[in-house]
Amino acid sequence: MRLAAALPILEWGRHYDRKMLASDVVAALVVTIMLVPQSLAYALLAGLPAEVGLYASIAPLLLYALFGTSRTLAVGPVAVIALMTATAAGSVAAEGSAEYLEAALALALLSGLILLAMGVLRLGFLANLLSHPVISGFITASGILIATSQLRHLFGVAGGGDTLPEMLTALLPALSQTHVPTLVVGLASLLFLVWARQGLKPLLERLGLAPRAAELAARGGPALAVIGAIAAVAGLGLDAKGVAVVGTIPAGLPPLGLPEPDPDLWGRLAVPAFLIALVGFVESVSVAQTLAARRRQRIVPDQELIGLGAANVAAAATGGMPVTGGFARSVVNFDAGAETPAAGAFTAVGIFLAALFLAPLLALLPVATLSATIIVAVLAIIDVNAPLRIFRYSRRDFAAMAITILVTLLAGVEPGIVAGVAASLLLHLWRSATPHAAIVGRVPGTEHFRNVQRHEVITFPHLLTVRVDESLTYLNARWLEEFLLAEVAARPALCHVVLMCSAVNAIDASALESLEAINHRLADAGIRLHLSEVKGPVMDRLQKSHFLDDLSGRVFLSQHDAFLTLAADPDGMAPPLPDPWGPRGLI
Amino acid sequence: MRLAAALPILEWGRHYDRKMLASDVVAALVVTIMLVPQSLAYALLAGLPAEVGLYASIAPLLLYALFGTSRTLAVGPVAVIALMTATAAGSVAAEGSAEYLEAALALALLSGLILLAMGVLRLGFLANLLSHPVISGFITASGILIATSQLRHLFGVAGGGDTLPEMLTALLPALSQTHVPTLVVGLASLLFLVWARQGLKPLLERLGLAPRAAELAARGGPALAVIGAIAAVAGLGLDAKGVAVVGTIPAGLPPLGLPEPDPDLWGRLAVPAFLIALVGFVESVSVAQTLAARRRQRIVPDQELIGLGAANVAAAATGGMPVTGGFARSVVNFDAGAETPAAGAFTAVGIFLAALFLAPLLALLPVATLSATIIVAVLAIIDVNAPLRIFRYSRRDFAAMAITILVTLLAGVEPGIVAGVAASLLLHLWRSATPHAAIVGRVPGTEHFRNVQRHEVITFPHLLTVRVDESLTYLNARWLEEFLLAEVAARPALCHVVLMCSAVNAIDASALESLEAINHRLADAGIRLHLSEVKGPVMDRLQKSHFLDDLSGRVFLSQHDAFLTLAADPDGMAPPLPDPWGPRGLI
Repeated sequence: MRLAAALPILEWGRHYDRKMLASDVVAALVVTIMLVPQSLAYALLAGLPAEVGLYASIAPLLLYALFGTSRTLAVGPVAVIALMTATAAGSVAAEGSAEYLEAALALALLSGLILLAMGVLRLGFLANLLSHPVISGFITASGILIATSQLRHLFGVAGGGDTLPEMLTALLPALSQTHVPTLVVGLASLLFLVWARQGLKPLLERLGLAPRAAELAARGGPALAVIGAIAAVAGLGLDAKGVAVVGTIPAGLPPLGLPEPDPDLWGRLAVPAFLIALVGFVESVSVAQTLAARRRQRIVPDQELIGLGAANVAAAATGGMPVTGGFARSVVNFDAGAETPAAGAFTAVGIFLAALFLAPLLALLPVATLSATIIVAVLAIIDVNAPLRIFRYSRRDFAAMAITILVTLLAGVEPGIVAGVAASLLLHLWRSATPHAAIVGRVPGTEHFRNVQRHEVITFPHLLTVRVDESLTYLNARWLEEFLLAEVAARPALCHVVLMCSAVNAIDASALESLEAINHRLADAGIRLHLSEVKGPVMDRLQKSHFLDDLSGRVFLSQHDAFLTLAADPDGMAPPLPDPWGPRGLI
Repeated sequence: MRLAAALPILEWGRHYDRKMLASDVVAALVVTIMLVPQSLAYALLAGLPAEVGLYASIAPLLLYALFGTSRTLAVGPVAVIALMTATAAGSVAAEGSAEYLEAALALALLSGLILLAMGVLRLGFLANLLSHPVISGFITASGILIATSQLRHLFGVAGGGDTLPEMLTALLPALSQTHVPTLVVGLASLLFLVWARQGLKPLLERLGLAPRAAELAARGGPALAVIGAIAAVAGLGLDAKGVAVVGTIPAGLPPLGLPEPDPDLWGRLAVPAFLIALVGFVESVSVAQTLAARRRQRIVPDQELIGLGAANVAAAATGGMPVTGGFARSVVNFDAGAETPAAGAFTAVGIFLAALFLAPLLALLPVATLSATIIVAVLAIIDVNAPLRIFRYSRRDFAAMAITILVTLLAGVEPGIVAGVAASLLLHLWRSATPHAAIVGRVPGTEHFRNVQRHEVITFPHLLTVRVDESLTYLNARWLEEFLLAEVAARPALCHVVLMCSAVNAIDASALESLEAINHRLADAGIRLHLSEVKGPVMDRLQKSHFLDDLSGRVFLSQHDAFLTLAADPDGMAPPLPDPWGPRGLI
């Protein structure tokens, strides 16, 4: 059982049959056709030679097929991770240098090791640090950065930079040197790809393809663009006219062997590698979960860390770049009928054959066409409505998102993701530190207690009931002290305070000490502290402490009971009654 | 009003009368007698000349009297802050050098500026990051470090070090060179001080003092020890026999003027200064709150930041060291009848006169006696029962405490406090990320719903009800998806899932997206998602999103209602009913 959990292939492999094989091979064929141009494009985006993208789409897929738990996730280079790789490698070496390639390999290795370590230590919950608004903001901002970074290839001019101001400063003056043949190729590719997203499927159906076949074939738009562009370059001799092309791609096997350990380089790349691991994991798991749920399958996030970690180590060992599960290609894999991770392994074989036999043909592929595929791909994943939607729902979440977007655009991907995580964490801590609390009174003629500010309710000068709508933890323990003591200081006639705990799911040791301090401080001022509607698990825990022994007042089963009893004791002189609570608690 | 909030003296100063003046002067006299030896001792602990302690007990008290909100807090050098100062200053300069003193002044200035900035920006909630178990563990471990660091003065040997292993490694071999006259003075001081804590008050009462006067006079134990030790040194010529004494203290005014800006030094001291500010603030506020509550007064934590910040800047400008509110001396101030912060100002005058006229007399004070006062003071603040008490209450809180104690002892005060904060934060995030959730069923014959694992309840194969005992936030949004999808994957006959939200106090944007994803994924699998017992404020917010429009199921006012309705729909074929919810929500 344990072995099967660590090697999911043992589970699905036992039931593998000819029908599954047929489905997986068809899906692999479709994904291969889609993945070849994507691999080349994301290598370009990462500032790496085109073959690195192909290499990153072979061994990693095989390893994920062994260790991953998603049946349909398609692993390989993706846009956001390629951008993060470019930024990190660019911070330690010049693009195009051997050191730059070395840095990309080191990033794949380190992020793979980090993912493996997180998987072994069951630290998958760390991915929670990336909230939805932060991830959404980060992908939007990265998409803008990626699209902007590709404009220079589209216009055939020089450029560069890691942030939007840097990119625009480099790009705008250079536009006067626009290379017109390159721009024509680029715009033609762009227009074709945009049209292909909507127009290819109906056309293929009209040409007689069945709707499902037409839908799958339409995913080959980028491949058609690549073929058409190569044909145009070859036919018109555009490379001789200065249109940048991919150039010779070495045919054959990827280079084998892990990068040499380099403590200095690894130290400088550790943080970027961690961020790449985290972003890649979050993206991949959300895609995998979406697809698994459609077939009532499950993925195991901690095992996914192992699968993605192994895939990245494999990328590092075979001359690749950091990889993760890609959204678009996984959906295609799923739609094309992939039934097991074997589809990924067959895709790896397909890319391997492409690297072996197609590489020479790709030499004439214009860079502008690849840039066009990148731009179309990233603009499709930007959710333009998200900021407004989140703004309407929650100002705090919007603040975290806005900070992520602005910092990513203005300072780059790493500061952006760090700022987003820090902002969500601070906002969360702030929310936990200042929870909602209401002074409540009794709704006349009922046993209900409501906020005195919203309802006409019965209260007494000698009795204060506070309902706290949050667990009591160290983050808000001090707030509770301040809130209660401020309310008490404003009520000279007070002699009973009731803390209504119906929404308190937990009380940690700090909050317990605060409650003890509140109890003593109130007692010093001649006021009794009571609790009402304490939940069973919370009561179980309180009974392990001395708090209940020292409590100046009582624990009431219901707020109604507390109100009736204490309303009748305006001087606080009645002796405290024995605790009615049994050993098990109420709930 | 605003001016009065920023300058609390304007509030209490208007009502100041002769009776208050008399009370404050008496309290100031008692505190001065207690503070003189404490100031000298904590300067020694910080590795600074004795007069620095006195200087830190003059101007800071005046500034706190202007800006602080506690009527009875007594500000000055305290043990834990002195130890942190020694560690931080020792990391940039050698003890006894001019640079070391400069570093101490810079620490006072920086922590003062940090406190002021936190006050202006209303960042007092950051102090919540220090949970009670972390503070308690830190004070225990610091107390052990402080007591150990003073043993060398007690034995009259060389020593040093920032961590327990370093201190013991330096101290133990040196014990063979113990200076017997020093040890005799030290032990005599120690025994007297230990006795004085319990025995001085009854003795004074027997000598005819009124109980309250005896209690206050008994606080003069350290002053008596100092006088006795000076007399012994002078009478027996102990300084000539090698007993280390404080030596000449320059009489007169403290040096005036802020330290020169030194970006390099300040950069290296920024983190320690922040930690000093945080620890000092937390300690001070908890003392101030305890005392204020006894008289039904209030303190304003954000204004306390201003008061303590101004006090520290004043310390830096007058040759002092970092200061904060001290526990023992504030209690004495309170017990002695201090009514307003003017008592602090009068104490400053007292210390000023002591620095002016007593300084020459203190030259013969043995260092071993000061060490004895430090040891007795810090051992009194260690709460030896706290670890066991917290262990019984909560393993997680105990883990945070144990990490703080171990790291402080083994790696020093700064790593200790950082490790404690990080550990509590991670444990809190982990707790938030993996909340308690229960699958519930109906208790036969009632409208109550309980955990299926604990109770005999009614359930149906086509209906799953999950109660989540935590607010839904980005930290547990992914957990919720995984939990629900795993439960769904295990139930082939399922067609209704009800999320019972009675303990959900909030749903943030990430959790909302997860709920939307869950809704869609369940719908893909032919399962309807329903909510029950949603709280009013949560419902208000959900109505600002599209979630309710897309929800495949219904929102039920009560779980009982949901159970009755859905139990009667075993195929999930009944059309969704209109939402019965009004615009205001239930609660």
